[in-house]
Amino acid sequence: MSGRLLLDHGSGGKASQRLVAEMFMRHFDNEILRVMDDAAYLDISGPLAVSTDTFTVDPIFFPGGDIGALSVHGTVNDVSMLGATPLFLTCGFVLEEGLDLGDLERVVVSMGRAAREAGVRIVAGDTKVVPRGAADKIFINTTGIGTVRVSPAPSGRRAAPGDAILLTGSMGDHGLAILSTRQGLSFESPVVSDCASLNFLVGKVLDAVPDVHVLRDPTRGGLATTLNEIAGQSGVGCFIEESRIPVDPAVAGGCAVLGLDPLYLANEGKFICIVPEADAEAALAVMRADALGRGACRIGEVRADYPGKVVMTTPLGGQRLLGMLEGEQLPRIC
Amino acid sequence: MSGRLLLDHGSGGKASQRLVAEMFMRHFDNEILRVMDDAAYLDISGPLAVSTDTFTVDPIFFPGGDIGALSVHGTVNDVSMLGATPLFLTCGFVLEEGLDLGDLERVVVSMGRAAREAGVRIVAGDTKVVPRGAADKIFINTTGIGTVRVSPAPSGRRAAPGDAILLTGSMGDHGLAILSTRQGLSFESPVVSDCASLNFLVGKVLDAVPDVHVLRDPTRGGLATTLNEIAGQSGVGCFIEESRIPVDPAVAGGCAVLGLDPLYLANEGKFICIVPEADAEAALAVMRADALGRGACRIGEVRADYPGKVVMTTPLGGQRLLGMLEGEQLPRIC
Repeated sequence: MSGRLLLDHGSGGKASQRLVAEMFMRHFDNEILRVMDDAAYLDISGPLAVSTDTFTVDPIFFPGGDIGALSVHGTVNDVSMLGATPLFLTCGFVLEEGLDLGDLERVVVSMGRAAREAGVRIVAGDTKVVPRGAADKIFINTTGIGTVRVSPAPSGRRAAPGDAILLTGSMGDHGLAILSTRQGLSFESPVVSDCASLNFLVGKVLDAVPDVHVLRDPTRGGLATTLNEIAGQSGVGCFIEESRIPVDPAVAGGCAVLGLDPLYLANEGKFICIVPEADAEAALAVMRADALGRGACRIGEVRADYPGKVVMTTPLGGQRLLGMLEGEQLPRIC
Repeated sequence: MSGRLLLDHGSGGKASQRLVAEMFMRHFDNEILRVMDDAAYLDISGPLAVSTDTFTVDPIFFPGGDIGALSVHGTVNDVSMLGATPLFLTCGFVLEEGLDLGDLERVVVSMGRAAREAGVRIVAGDTKVVPRGAADKIFINTTGIGTVRVSPAPSGRRAAPGDAILLTGSMGDHGLAILSTRQGLSFESPVVSDCASLNFLVGKVLDAVPDVHVLRDPTRGGLATTLNEIAGQSGVGCFIEESRIPVDPAVAGGCAVLGLDPLYLANEGKFICIVPEADAEAALAVMRADALGRGACRIGEVRADYPGKVVMTTPLGGQRLLGMLEGEQLPRIC
């Protein structure tokens, strides 16, 4: 499609119907969506995992992805973190009048592809068009529904003293990719977002280690903030070693130049996995055998002391408390 | 809460956590939301009805409601239209930096109250804060999940020749209330949005008449557009009589002044109900006994001729085709 988006496309009338038919139905097509009733009919049994996220990332196209793919990956991942198999997504668009329809189509195509690759179907949608200046290009809400595979489900409340803290790969790629694109910076080695759907890797880990205690993807606020949340929810201390946390040299370099800490930058294709010590090696082996977990490593352990805190051992052997993110490093990162 | 919203409130860090704790958890509190994992765990069995809608209404406060209550009513109603009992909502906020926190709290309180009154729980949420000018105050996505009560479920595909077309009340109230507020117009009799959750009334109708063929709420595009959708989905003609369609005198007067047609204005607390002729009186009796269906009436019937069309008999006895909405009467109506 070419041209510009008009207010008319959000009216609920003829132009809306054409947009839905020629854009959304074409790229998201499946038999549930095709019914076009006010709600989608899902033949599914519980227990279910449900998660919602609105994506406002700026710019909408960035190295390694775009807002469409990200809106699928992000919600697929949140559903997966409850030990669930994501099956269905809904999507709600807020679009700015005057948006280039070619850009919208690129985003929609990317979203459709990401959904197919992750094995999820987009079953319901909504489109609002707001006047020029009332939104910035494209915002996308996705809500994901999946079936929980293990009982009890992994939860931020289940980290227990003695557990190993594993991480599937390097930190900070997504955050730095967005920031450098936005500011027109280029580094010697390009920095690319890690955004990816983690559901199949999570499935393999659960097959090998059904008793995973915690799964959590360190998005906004980064690894440091996410570990603090888990420490708080479980009432335990998370002890990690700085030297074990993988950071890509290009990301480390960019962060040094910009005064950013990669431990507080958002990731969109990595997860933290906390398992009983006895299961740690099995989980790591599964992760390392998958392209999305090749850099998996053990970064620390859970202890009973310092409940609610994250304690990091520095390369020089000192220990410091790693707090939650304070202030805003970077708005519209996801 | 007082003061202004900062970018910080959307960072995922400390300020975000405070906003979530002091605003959303306080007013939406329930045991599922309280777990605060990446996804909510729902103990529910299918088949399910799922619907999503993003609300961008301008202004955010209007006679008869606000964007918070509307975001609950709208999605509760869409889920109900599949003959389902809505149980859970997710909500995704996009908030503009600088938003008055008092206004946000009014919206959140109203949303919490609307959810409690409709018997639904808000089980997952997300908040994004975008820089000043990147969004207009507040956008809210809600996604609703409910259990389908009847089999087969009502669907826009099930209108059959001989069926009666019923309507629960007057047309155009929401659309005109929004427009008149936005333009600073006042009429002799105040025009108030009809926005309301219809789930309990739908439940009563299904108890009395399990074989409801179609339920649909005429929101964007109004009654005329919604009947066209049903006619198209079912491959039938919808024949209605103009004189039977209830329109409040204040709405009719306002529409006359402004050159608007109430049959194309959005409604947020009414539904179309298409049932076998033999069930029509029973359904109307149930509707009229409920405050939200007091003005219920029969507006026409389904026929095999003119498939895909809506044919309206005018008060003078002429017949005309009623098309879908073309052009945009009114952006940001919901």
